[in-house]
Amino acid sequence: MSEHHHDHDHYTKGIMFADDRSIDPAAIEMLHKAKADNVETAHDRYAAQLPQCGFGDLGICCRICLQGPCRVNPFGEPKKGVCGADADLIVARNLLRTIVGGAASHADHSYMAIHCLKEAAEGKADYEIKGSDKIKTVAAKLGIDYEGRPDNDVAAEIADVALQDFGNATDEPMRWITATAPKERVDKWAELGVLPTNPDREIRAAMHQTSMGVDGSPVNTLLASLKLGIVDGYAGLQLGTDIQDILFGIPQPVKSEANLGVLAPSKVNIVVHGHMPEVSEKIVEWAHKLEDEARAAGADGIQLAGICCSGNEVLMRQGVPMAGNYLSQELAIITGAVELMVVDVQCFMPSITKVASCYHTKIVTTTPIGQLPDAEHIPFTPDTADAKAADIVRKAIANYANRDPQKVQIPTYRSEAWGGFSVESIVGALSALDAEQPLKPLVDNIIAGNVFGAVGVVGCNNVKVRQDYQTVEMIKHLLANNVLVVATGCTATAVAKYGFMTPEGAEMYAGDGLKAVLKAVGEAAGLGGPLPPVLHMGSCVDNSRIGDLLGALAGYLGVSIKDLPVAASAPELQHEKAVSIGTWAVALGVLTHCGVVPPVLGSPLVTKVLTDDLDQLVGGKFFVELDPIKAADTMIEHIAAKRKALGI
Amino acid sequence: MSEHHHDHDHYTKGIMFADDRSIDPAAIEMLHKAKADNVETAHDRYAAQLPQCGFGDLGICCRICLQGPCRVNPFGEPKKGVCGADADLIVARNLLRTIVGGAASHADHSYMAIHCLKEAAEGKADYEIKGSDKIKTVAAKLGIDYEGRPDNDVAAEIADVALQDFGNATDEPMRWITATAPKERVDKWAELGVLPTNPDREIRAAMHQTSMGVDGSPVNTLLASLKLGIVDGYAGLQLGTDIQDILFGIPQPVKSEANLGVLAPSKVNIVVHGHMPEVSEKIVEWAHKLEDEARAAGADGIQLAGICCSGNEVLMRQGVPMAGNYLSQELAIITGAVELMVVDVQCFMPSITKVASCYHTKIVTTTPIGQLPDAEHIPFTPDTADAKAADIVRKAIANYANRDPQKVQIPTYRSEAWGGFSVESIVGALSALDAEQPLKPLVDNIIAGNVFGAVGVVGCNNVKVRQDYQTVEMIKHLLANNVLVVATGCTATAVAKYGFMTPEGAEMYAGDGLKAVLKAVGEAAGLGGPLPPVLHMGSCVDNSRIGDLLGALAGYLGVSIKDLPVAASAPELQHEKAVSIGTWAVALGVLTHCGVVPPVLGSPLVTKVLTDDLDQLVGGKFFVELDPIKAADTMIEHIAAKRKALGI
Repeated sequence: MSEHHHDHDHYTKGIMFADDRSIDPAAIEMLHKAKADNVETAHDRYAAQLPQCGFGDLGICCRICLQGPCRVNPFGEPKKGVCGADADLIVARNLLRTIVGGAASHADHSYMAIHCLKEAAEGKADYEIKGSDKIKTVAAKLGIDYEGRPDNDVAAEIADVALQDFGNATDEPMRWITATAPKERVDKWAELGVLPTNPDREIRAAMHQTSMGVDGSPVNTLLASLKLGIVDGYAGLQLGTDIQDILFGIPQPVKSEANLGVLAPSKVNIVVHGHMPEVSEKIVEWAHKLEDEARAAGADGIQLAGICCSGNEVLMRQGVPMAGNYLSQELAIITGAVELMVVDVQCFMPSITKVASCYHTKIVTTTPIGQLPDAEHIPFTPDTADAKAADIVRKAIANYANRDPQKVQIPTYRSEAWGGFSVESIVGALSALDAEQPLKPLVDNIIAGNVFGAVGVVGCNNVKVRQDYQTVEMIKHLLANNVLVVATGCTATAVAKYGFMTPEGAEMYAGDGLKAVLKAVGEAAGLGGPLPPVLHMGSCVDNSRIGDLLGALAGYLGVSIKDLPVAASAPELQHEKAVSIGTWAVALGVLTHCGVVPPVLGSPLVTKVLTDDLDQLVGGKFFVELDPIKAADTMIEHIAAKRKALGI
Repeated sequence: MSEHHHDHDHYTKGIMFADDRSIDPAAIEMLHKAKADNVETAHDRYAAQLPQCGFGDLGICCRICLQGPCRVNPFGEPKKGVCGADADLIVARNLLRTIVGGAASHADHSYMAIHCLKEAAEGKADYEIKGSDKIKTVAAKLGIDYEGRPDNDVAAEIADVALQDFGNATDEPMRWITATAPKERVDKWAELGVLPTNPDREIRAAMHQTSMGVDGSPVNTLLASLKLGIVDGYAGLQLGTDIQDILFGIPQPVKSEANLGVLAPSKVNIVVHGHMPEVSEKIVEWAHKLEDEARAAGADGIQLAGICCSGNEVLMRQGVPMAGNYLSQELAIITGAVELMVVDVQCFMPSITKVASCYHTKIVTTTPIGQLPDAEHIPFTPDTADAKAADIVRKAIANYANRDPQKVQIPTYRSEAWGGFSVESIVGALSALDAEQPLKPLVDNIIAGNVFGAVGVVGCNNVKVRQDYQTVEMIKHLLANNVLVVATGCTATAVAKYGFMTPEGAEMYAGDGLKAVLKAVGEAAGLGGPLPPVLHMGSCVDNSRIGDLLGALAGYLGVSIKDLPVAASAPELQHEKAVSIGTWAVALGVLTHCGVVPPVLGSPLVTKVLTDDLDQLVGGKFFVELDPIKAADTMIEHIAAKRKALGI
């Protein structure tokens, strides 16, 4: 059980299993156990859903008013819904509402973090503010004076500025955008009329715009989609990351592990799942504090593990290992070894209580908006977080006695994985090579061609595609072609499981040019080996870190982000958030790959705007490619074209 | 063409036509002309959509994440979507998003009105503030000192308070709610955890709550639906009506007309359509100012007419006649006599440009979020309203020359219709009987049984049901049973077309007890005849007037609204707004009828909560009944039960 498999073995074994649901051997093992235990998983439910509705798949089903549901026929009549909306309008409206769902999810996540920061700054919360450095950089961006002021004062003012953005009733753009986005982009968005004012107001207006009998222009609706993508980028990702770094500290490189093998056979296993570090950080803190109680209960201590972005948050700041990504959430419970899974918001399947009922696992929900009928609800608030976290950890400890050893089977697969590559820590590593101009060594290597370009690979798992397969195959091809890869979210966990986030991964996967750079940086920075070829930049909201890095590179080179030799990819996108994040990436000027077809193909116009016309507007666009090698090649060609345009 | 048909004739003829699309003879005439002219209408598109998707109809289709579309089988497997969501959760989430769509539409409408008021108060807009009385009553409710202050100062402060509600970052409830809703209701909502703070924040949180992997509890999701219904009631209806009354004045009883026969054969016909009086009021103002230009262009002047709530707004404040309700919007154009139709937001079919292209009619859009590809876009802003309105009216005048007399056929049907029954004007009429306690005569007559109870009939047309049929039949039955009816929105227009909003209507339709009361009030108030048996209380946002009236009656009697002998009905609901308004009515404690089945029947739990359990929670619930007589009887029984409980 404690055997440590080599990374490459994992991957090879995954392929060898030849299961069309996953390449992850741990996942496959648990899917077999699920069958033996008679437990239903997402894969079973997906199989039962097939064939899925073709109208919905193409985006040409409208359920917005009670005259529907309406469907248009892509091959004939009817071509219009009752109100007269055609395929273009129906698809555009559905897409905008999807992006609103994503932007609202991220903005709401940020909003909770802002309130937590504000209460912490005022001494009313169970949280200490740990990100002193981040307070200064964020204050500087916002034009807040911080010299000589106590951290808490400045943090409170930052929280107030954030809340002012949410209450902004003027036509002025969102301050968080003008303070943090590249000016060239802000000007471009203003020119296009897609520069957001107040995130909530934009969300409300977009819901209005898409209601029956308001916007009849698919192009106007698509522009609103672009605007809402930008809302996500700044009210969700940027704001969320900035506030979370202030609260919990800026991540620094940290060694951890990933895959179900991180669960401990003789410890109390607690899995944190969801997205809010306010919850997961406190669980980690109290798991450490109550380790003795776990021992008193007969366990060898407490083993923490993460699923989805709650896991990424505590991996990058606390070194907590990842149990798995989205499609492994049910599988973690199926090990029979999880005493408790605590969830907060986003991406936890409603099925987990059903799966847990087949084992001893206890599910705890923690936010008013995220409840489950058969889970225990212990609502977290900033001023009760310690008591609630202690309560939850003690429930896990008490549940250890209920574990049925007959039902326990923990896959042995796990891989070393480095996390914590914030922009600050990347710049820190690079400054070992050039303290004055830390970006210079990276840029010089890009110019020299040692680093051909960079791709951010982000997003979810999606039961429609083999877990981790597209992600891993695409990334292998990119790395072999000297393209540096950064990753977040469930994609980061995917690649972490197969050794891409280790120094050895550089040797194994990187092309010669990239390998040499990773070695030089890693050694100069005293990491004792090369940088991993895929840098784990954090959770889904941490995609803003990728945006920050792009902005810094563009600024250094004196060009627009759209001119950089970079691309983005969401090979297994699933959540509305992935669509809104992708839209923000496109708004930044980045070519963005989707490995799952979004429900837009029913509209030739929307498809053309997204995959073609947007390039003229913002210098970025989407492309859809289900073959990972072709997807990688398309991005490599794009990078080559951008290099050529830059004259390098 | 100028022949004035008697109301009762209209109705009888409607029935005689025996067309299953409408009982309105003018509509039927135009539907025949549409066929002759080879013009497609909503009815044609609906026929082409049949059969509609049963999954969507039952609410058990989920398109929230990219693993779907998922469908559950009401008769077998699969019972769950990919994530594990069952029918209850899928229906509850879809319903909440529908209510968010409605609440966001109304809140956004209010928000635009607030900005207009603020700019007007600051002297920066083309609007004079006309509602001096309303400023005082609203200020008093909000606790704003108004004695001795100029109207504009107080109005600006009111606008600021409204904007503060939209920016409220505290846990305090929305001020507009605590200031205007009955305290008993506010306490009840607080107890249930459904008292809104900031409308935008609630909208954002609800979108988050319904995204993949957040709320897995259908009951918790349904509670959020109740909260968002209350958001609509106060951030949409109450706030919108209050602000609009301040801007444009409190409506007073006014005589007008309704149905397509109001279009003038030899005048420039301008139709205002949509919802925002900021637009329609200015069009009316400039149509009056530019009448001479129309004459110079060879017309006999300018004829204004309304469709949907833009029409209701200018009917009740300016006496502008109604051309028709929602399903007559295409038909107005098909007369061939409309020079220009100006739209703003909500309920204008994207088809109208296509219909207009068969005639000379020009379509003008006026808001950034409501555009049409083949219309001219002339965006209104508070500081350019005069110029824009003049421009639009002049475009209509210029277009008169393009009218093709061969294509003109204006139905002769039109009925007298009284509008403008604001709470203030109703109380004004009643105070002719008892100046000290104006509600006493009404309440005494309710106690005596002369007025058996009251029903608010509101909402849309829906192509799924025969235009106006359910509305009219139900109201006839209610009136015959001495139930006073108040109406708003497209329902008000429906009944206006058939003479229910005339003094003669009292004679024709009201039961003896009700008739006597209507006569007494009408004569005492100097209206020269009975009050109409159906009081036109305005547009859809004016449903807050009904809420205010209920609150005043409950306050006078010292009971909760839920104890009053009243009910509500949306016999032909269609828009998301109708669902959110209905939810607010239920939250107020009112039994609410739906004459179209909302897409919830796929969930036994949701259906039971909406039609049963809510009664225990808030004292109101929904019922669905497609037969108008049975619907009326159910409401009459409910009223009888409430009377009995009150001991009257």
